[in-house]
Amino acid sequence: RVGKILLRIHPAKVAGLLESLPPTERSTVWSMVETERTGKVLTYLHDEIRISLARQLEVEDLVATAQRLELDDLVDLIQTLPSELSSALLQSSTGRRREQLESMLSYPEDSAGGLMDADPIEVRANVKVGTVLRYLRLLETLPSHTDILMVVDRKGHYQGTLRLSTLVTAELGLRVSDVMQTDIAGISVHTEATEVARLFQDLDLLSAPVVDDDNRLIGRITVDDVVDLIRQDSDRAMMQMAGLDDEADIFAPVLVSSRRRAVWLGINLLTAFLAAWVIGRFQATLEHVVALAVLMPIVASMGGVAGSQTLTLVIRGLALGQVQKGNIRILLNREVGISILNGLLWAVVVALLAVAWFGDWGIGGVLGAAILINLLCAALAGLAIPLILDRLGIDPALAGSVILTTVTDVIGFFSFLGLATVLLL
Amino acid sequence: RVGKILLRIHPAKVAGLLESLPPTERSTVWSMVETERTGKVLTYLHDEIRISLARQLEVEDLVATAQRLELDDLVDLIQTLPSELSSALLQSSTGRRREQLESMLSYPEDSAGGLMDADPIEVRANVKVGTVLRYLRLLETLPSHTDILMVVDRKGHYQGTLRLSTLVTAELGLRVSDVMQTDIAGISVHTEATEVARLFQDLDLLSAPVVDDDNRLIGRITVDDVVDLIRQDSDRAMMQMAGLDDEADIFAPVLVSSRRRAVWLGINLLTAFLAAWVIGRFQATLEHVVALAVLMPIVASMGGVAGSQTLTLVIRGLALGQVQKGNIRILLNREVGISILNGLLWAVVVALLAVAWFGDWGIGGVLGAAILINLLCAALAGLAIPLILDRLGIDPALAGSVILTTVTDVIGFFSFLGLATVLLL
Ligand SMILES: [Mg+2]
Ligand SMILES: [Mg+2]
Ligand SMILES: [Mg+2]
Ligand SMILES: [Mg+2]
Ligand SMILES: [Mg+2]
Ligand SMILES: [Mg+2]
Ligand SMILES: [Mg+2]
Ligand SMILES: [Mg+2]
Ligand SMILES: [Mg+2]
Ligand SMILES: [Mg+2]
Ligand SMILES: [Mg+2]
Ligand SMILES: [Mg+2]
Ligand SMILES: [Mg+2]
Repeated sequence: RVGKILLRIHPAKVAGLLESLPPTERSTVWSMVETERTGKVLTYLHDEIRISLARQLEVEDLVATAQRLELDDLVDLIQTLPSELSSALLQSSTGRRREQLESMLSYPEDSAGGLMDADPIEVRANVKVGTVLRYLRLLETLPSHTDILMVVDRKGHYQGTLRLSTLVTAELGLRVSDVMQTDIAGISVHTEATEVARLFQDLDLLSAPVVDDDNRLIGRITVDDVVDLIRQDSDRAMMQMAGLDDEADIFAPVLVSSRRRAVWLGINLLTAFLAAWVIGRFQATLEHVVALAVLMPIVASMGGVAGSQTLTLVIRGLALGQVQKGNIRILLNREVGISILNGLLWAVVVALLAVAWFGDWGIGGVLGAAILINLLCAALAGLAIPLILDRLGIDPALAGSVILTTVTDVIGFFSFLGLATVLLL
Repeated sequence: RVGKILLRIHPAKVAGLLESLPPTERSTVWSMVETERTGKVLTYLHDEIRISLARQLEVEDLVATAQRLELDDLVDLIQTLPSELSSALLQSSTGRRREQLESMLSYPEDSAGGLMDADPIEVRANVKVGTVLRYLRLLETLPSHTDILMVVDRKGHYQGTLRLSTLVTAELGLRVSDVMQTDIAGISVHTEATEVARLFQDLDLLSAPVVDDDNRLIGRITVDDVVDLIRQDSDRAMMQMAGLDDEADIFAPVLVSSRRRAVWLGINLLTAFLAAWVIGRFQATLEHVVALAVLMPIVASMGGVAGSQTLTLVIRGLALGQVQKGNIRILLNREVGISILNGLLWAVVVALLAVAWFGDWGIGGVLGAAILINLLCAALAGLAIPLILDRLGIDPALAGSVILTTVTDVIGFFSFLGLATVLLL
């Protein structure tokens, strides 16, 4: 009965169901999925689950179902499956499909070459619209997501696109050159995937031509794969900020997950000990004025929050191109200005609260001064850290936050306890 | 000269350029943008900049350029511009466009109705393919992003779709009913936008029909707008986690930005004082054993990191549908298991480091025990907080992290200092 229901639901939904099941139930449901559909379902799964379920298939079944996949999906499978499976998949393809597959596998996953399909329909510029229509009718079907035909010259150089919507409305006697669009340039096969996504979004593309260094048409990218890419990237960024792997199974064995998460906790422990070491330098001060121990987390915490606001703004600004060399100076002035205004505001508020609590103007003054200093440093760090990481080629969304809070903790504890040592003892 | 260059670059790039400029230069460049193109550029800008630049246009120019926009873009403008401008835009539309506009404005922005255009091309099921083609040729142009025609009955009820790619390959004598697809159901106009995005991603749609409660076709959604939506949502989530508004101008006046950010700092201050108050309950203990003040941030910090791992996993799991009622129990067991394993591991490591540092087995033991307790509570909180927020209809990505770290701070300080008070004094 479950098997019959599975037959009627879309592979994407089957994949969603499998991901929401713990391993035992997952295997049971998986064995009920029709063999022909397993390949398509695999393409929707996150890597870890994909690998484990692919391993549960007979190799010949996997090979058979993979023959039904579009090339770009097959490339995806080959790139993520373990080598014994991926080489079986590769070897089972023959002829033109094999050639295309190998060419597509030769490009990095996160490039236009890694996103493309090798199935554009080509037409010549000097042909008449009516002739193109007769040619298409001979083909009987077009590859999925064909909204444009690619216009190429005799040597296969990309010249422009002919929309299907133009083809069905244009006069039959016109030539392709009269009605084709030339405003969309071919995307170089080496273009980075994020750049491709930006192009699709800005130009509202449904599909786009991919060309080699000689402007020869070698493939096309379709928007459905761009949608997957955008979603994956935002998903990955969110997971990485917590030190998690977005391809991991949420029902992976406890021991496996523990080991993975331990790494991130270990990194954090180092930074926490660094902060503790700074506090340790001031044990004598703390012994004299124990109120300092009560209040010091406030300084660190306010700096962390203010700094992460600047950090987030800059990380997004870099991604959108709002932050550039030419305006960093202006941004710096603004962030410093904001941090001073907010520093003054909250320094006064926090100082007064501390005075009310401990009845000591000295403690209040030191606390306020430390908050002002830490917010200022937080703004500088929030701006500098992503710029430096970006320059070093490290994703600022990954490491930025850990580094920032380490800085604001250290500066927060040091300025507060340091000022107290100098002024209160 | 700049004006000429601006003419050649795409409105999306012009918008990007404007966003990267500080206000004065921005106004100068804006005044050089050709009046006809200003409307399209406005649609690519974030709300705050959009409003300020729209105000710099003459109202009649704004109205004129808005006439050139597609309806869904115009709806977007009307929804974000201040009322004096938006009512001018609305009043200047007449006839059918005005009717469609008012109907589109009646749906919530984040619903299928708010995403749709009112321009589907309709055909009847009993018509021949050749006839459809002749009909299209009479239309001369199709709305942008038309990949499918909508098949409706005499009363306008949605019946299925006819792909252009089928139309150009099918035999001319076949009827629409022979070649149409019926596998894509009409999207109800009330469907939530995130659900629409999920549908487009899973089914690889380029456009989709929108229907009313009687299954009558009233519009269509195109993938380009879904791409914008997905990007916006991930952008907003990232900004909101730092208490920032994703529609704000990064070059807004310092005073305005300061006031906005102050709110988030104020909320954080409350949580920081709560933690400080907990520490304050143990001043006598801290006076006796000052090493506790040095080590206590480690407990809070480890709990925060471990908890945010669980929190992030659950937030994503909820978004992807991996986390559901049926598997929460399993997830709970796993997260508790992981937190105990990691808690034991890091408790031992941290305890030994503390013993090495302070030469006191009691302090090491208390520290290790507090870390174990805090990691366990962090796992429970990381699981419970997003589930509760989700149930309350609050976006867990927005408030989850603040609540979680408040919990881990309070429990961390309380368990560490509490245990120390009981065991070490
Ligand atoms: Mg993947
Ligand atoms: Mg594809
Ligand atoms: Mg793919
Ligand atoms: Mg790929
Ligand atoms: Mg495809
Ligand atoms: Mg777009
Ligand atoms: Mg795909
Ligand atoms: Mg907007
Ligand atoms: Mg649209
Ligand atoms: Mg809208
Ligand atoms: Mg559109
Ligand atoms: Mg898809
Ligand atoms: Mg749009």
